Amino acid sequence: MTANDTLFRLAQVLEMRKQADPDKSYVAQLHRKGLDHILKKLGEEAIETVIAGKAGDIDPLIYETADLWFHSLVLLSHYNISPDAILAELDRRFGLSGLDEKAQRHSSPSSPRD
Amino acid sequence: MTANDTLFRLAQVLEMRKQADPDKSYVAQLHRKGLDHILKKLGEEAIETVIAGKAGDIDPLIYETADLWFHSLVLLSHYNISPDAILAELDRRFGLSGLDEKAQRHSSPSSPRD
Amino acid sequence: MTANDTLFRLAQVLEMRKQADPDKSYVAQLHRKGLDHILKKLGEEAIETVIAGKAGDIDPLIYETADLWFHSLVLLSHYNISPDAILAELDRRFGLSGLDEKAQRHSSPSSPRD
Amino acid sequence: MTANDTLFRLAQVLEMRKQADPDKSYVAQLHRKGLDHILKKLGEEAIETVIAGKAGDIDPLIYETADLWFHSLVLLSHYNISPDAILAELDRRFGLSGLDEKAQRHSSPSSPRD
Repeated sequence: MTANDTLFRLAQVLEMRKQADPDKSYVAQLHRKGLDHILKKLGEEAIETVIAGKAGDIDPLIYETADLWFHSLVLLSHYNISPDAILAELDRRFGLSGLDEKAQRHSSPSSPRD
Repeated sequence: MTANDTLFRLAQVLEMRKQADPDKSYVAQLHRKGLDHILKKLGEEAIETVIAGKAGDIDPLIYETADLWFHSLVLLSHYNISPDAILAELDRRFGLSGLDEKAQRHSSPSSPRD
Repeated sequence: MTANDTLFRLAQVLEMRKQADPDKSYVAQLHRKGLDHILKKLGEEAIETVIAGKAGDIDPLIYETADLWFHSLVLLSHYNISPDAILAELDRRFGLSGLDEKAQRHSSPSSPRD
Repeated sequence: MTANDTLFRLAQVLEMRKQADPDKSYVAQLHRKGLDHILKKLGEEAIETVIAGKAGDIDPLIYETADLWFHSLVLLSHYNISPDAILAELDRRFGLSGLDEKAQRHSSPSSPRD
């Protein structure tokens, strides 16, 4: 699935649906209900991911993780934050930008993440 | 680099670090402590994301969301699930695979997601 | 409200309603939907308590905390655990049984709770 | 001793320990670290309660529920809310004040709680 930028394309869809008719779009509904509702849904999906993860059921775990990422992207969209900011942060921590070895050679041994 | 690339490369790093020395790798430590510990960390990061989201502080929100996605990937890795499974599920729901219009024309009006 | 044992009386009500008609009793509905649903509701109420706590709104915080304790009691009831077990555990940690001073004099300095 | 007594006495202890030396009191430490830390701990204990509840292990479930109620009381204490407010809310919903039958005869059929 290279060059198929699911997260970025999803973020674009989420951005467009902010303005959609809440009667037709779940995303528009979330935004109409407001920040607390989005936060609550994010928390719920995390709990459901934990329950599925504890049960060890693969399909529900995939489904709940997708729900968790989805509502996480809606929260970012509420604040006009691109998923790129999250990926850049993960990149920064893990030196994934093609300079892995160099990054790791120079990284602090007391880094909180690997 | 595409978003998917970052997640896939991170997933590869996580896979390798499963076998690493827990004294040197935070990821290896998580796996040594086991599933309940991974689930607990995932839940904690979700709570911290909710708190940062409620406060409306952008930088902590980016940082906590990165932590949430990271621990979510560690949970997937515990079950040998590729992030591809999550992206495919998001793709399926949102018709992002380049066939958006067609997918949307044929989608059920009672779909739970948009 | 001395001698008015709200938690114990509530636990008795919860016990009776396990057998009630799910169409008439929210508690019976929770039990019919099963453990995962009860866990999910408990998690949701915790998230809502965190959101209300972050906002500093007193009335919602009281309401959400009542919901949290309530669903916590339903979970205990699912496993036939009396709230007494929780109160005894809190008692044990805090030496509240009328022997406070003695309990504290003998408590380990490395105790995780005060 | 009634359940309410335990909660009220614990609330008194928590109130006193707000002013204690954070090096000697876990409660004082929580307050020094501040609201976000208290909220985070509350959320963590909820996640751990969910994990123990899913596993069906009775002793950890009792322990984690005690932790959850404890940190919930610390949050109330942060806002100078007495546990009485929570018990009164539960009382109000369930008509537990010795007027159960009357309360139930008069209760609205559309009440969200039983």
